[in-house]
Amino acid sequence: MTKERSYFEATALKRQHDLSPEHVPEVYHFDRTMSLIGMRYIEPPHIILRKGLIAGVEYPLLAEHMSEFMANTTVFNTLSSLATTTQHKSAVAEFCANVEICRLTEQVVFSDPYKISEFNRWTSPFLDTDAEAIRNDKILKLEVAELKSKFCEKTQALIHGDLHTSSVMVTKDSTQVIDPEFAFYGPMGFDIGAFIGNLFLAYFAQDGHVDHENDRKAYKAWILDTIVNTWNLFYKKFTSLWDTHKEGPGEAYIHEIYNDLELRELVKQKYMMDLFHDSLGFAAAKMIRRIVGVAHVEDFESISDLVKRSDCERRALDFAKNLMKKRRNFNTIIDVISVA
Amino acid sequence: MTKERSYFEATALKRQHDLSPEHVPEVYHFDRTMSLIGMRYIEPPHIILRKGLIAGVEYPLLAEHMSEFMANTTVFNTLSSLATTTQHKSAVAEFCANVEICRLTEQVVFSDPYKISEFNRWTSPFLDTDAEAIRNDKILKLEVAELKSKFCEKTQALIHGDLHTSSVMVTKDSTQVIDPEFAFYGPMGFDIGAFIGNLFLAYFAQDGHVDHENDRKAYKAWILDTIVNTWNLFYKKFTSLWDTHKEGPGEAYIHEIYNDLELRELVKQKYMMDLFHDSLGFAAAKMIRRIVGVAHVEDFESISDLVKRSDCERRALDFAKNLMKKRRNFNTIIDVISVA
Repeated sequence: MTKERSYFEATALKRQHDLSPEHVPEVYHFDRTMSLIGMRYIEPPHIILRKGLIAGVEYPLLAEHMSEFMANTTVFNTLSSLATTTQHKSAVAEFCANVEICRLTEQVVFSDPYKISEFNRWTSPFLDTDAEAIRNDKILKLEVAELKSKFCEKTQALIHGDLHTSSVMVTKDSTQVIDPEFAFYGPMGFDIGAFIGNLFLAYFAQDGHVDHENDRKAYKAWILDTIVNTWNLFYKKFTSLWDTHKEGPGEAYIHEIYNDLELRELVKQKYMMDLFHDSLGFAAAKMIRRIVGVAHVEDFESISDLVKRSDCERRALDFAKNLMKKRRNFNTIIDVISVA
Repeated sequence: MTKERSYFEATALKRQHDLSPEHVPEVYHFDRTMSLIGMRYIEPPHIILRKGLIAGVEYPLLAEHMSEFMANTTVFNTLSSLATTTQHKSAVAEFCANVEICRLTEQVVFSDPYKISEFNRWTSPFLDTDAEAIRNDKILKLEVAELKSKFCEKTQALIHGDLHTSSVMVTKDSTQVIDPEFAFYGPMGFDIGAFIGNLFLAYFAQDGHVDHENDRKAYKAWILDTIVNTWNLFYKKFTSLWDTHKEGPGEAYIHEIYNDLELRELVKQKYMMDLFHDSLGFAAAKMIRRIVGVAHVEDFESISDLVKRSDCERRALDFAKNLMKKRRNFNTIIDVISVA
């Protein structure tokens, strides 16, 4: 891939830091010729969130911080409230050049898992029939086409583009979102779904990390709570920012049209429900590709017993397939959790 | 507005002429500095289609030609089949610069008719309560927000952007699509809807053009037939081009995934149904704005008896409101016609 991706990483880091300074490290210097980013050192005891989730560490502020990051960085970068069409289209045009990395996502997330590809792998032979079932699942393939089209065409907001649990560094008190080299104008649900989907992967992997000291039951409950809180807090923060800035330019939802409380509430509910269903679809796509696609996650890979690992993976896969196909039937995140 | 729009008009004319040479005039020369377009003279007896529709002239090839123009110019410019993501994103970026003219559409089509605006006008006092009802219709305003977001965010294909019946010149044998200065990457349904919506305006205006020589009944039936044929022929031509080019790059619907006949048929049906519902929504938006917004159409304006004119307009408005709100309940274009 082109080294130009460092330009988009640095640019996205700066914009996201401006909008969410507590959760995005500061960029001190960027040299485009050298593809060099000088940025804040994220000091110990920060670790990659995924490592913490595998170790069974609770992060009580994680949902609060991640929902804040997602609400702040999207609401100010989407047409739904503050940016004018002119700003929006010029930013869309700029990030269209980050195309190589979008093509990579299109291939590894939305295409390869659904066809025979030399890059795919899975816990064989245990998941052989599961992987084949994905490739033969007509309804699933209809749904993934719709999600792929949204990923390619819906220039809703400047998104991180790769918001899984290895793009987040944490301590008990601090949450830092890094590595936005995949940033582009895409559907917001892709970020929310990436984060939630990877929390679900962590959840389904827990049974593989049980030992005589820890049955992981309480930890599994904490992960599910964190998923619930992430979405519900995001909903609250995003709509609250929307309310606060109601006198802003707000191209799509201008105040003179959506001019009474009931209507404003209705329009927000509709917008957020569409976003919720997008997020669930993308969460499912991100889960499936981590089990039968090219890039796997340490949550499962670190389970050395392959029977145990494949059992965990199969449960995650079945959950994800159901989530992608039935996403429009879920009205609340609690409904989703109850299926998991 | 900026004179740069002539650059986008010339560029779109060239691309559309390449893809649909029989229905788009050739550009011989473009001078960007002078904003000068040298193009084919569309000779008499070609007239603006809207004039023909008011005069009650039948154009037997209109649906055939317009469906061909819409299928050819969109299928090769959308991600659904032939363009790679790289080509798509670079073209999207280029046309993002045509933003001023997009902003104009956003305002006059999707905003002004739904709020009090100094630019709005209607056949007063006859339609005063109708115009007010639009501004107070919560469900309608929810729907128009979704359509506006799609217009602003969905970079589906290079569209004409202003495909009403005054952007088409006709004889009995020839159909020429002109004036694509509003061209940008947007939702395909916006073009299809513009054309169909303007045919419906022509249909509802016919009762105002009845005289003792012609009751216009046969002509009304011809307009409805033309609407039916336009959509059905577009469906046939678009999906047939999709089939023919199945071995092309086809980023969203690659052959190895959508690899059996049943699945290919399913995915096409789903895609086309979404496009149908988009088209109906945009058709309704384009009708409403021509009756209570800033720019009106000669179809109604040429009816000098204001009572008669406002009766025609009210029927069109009621039909359009219903169409926008219920568009997802229509499965075929015949269902739509039966409501009209």
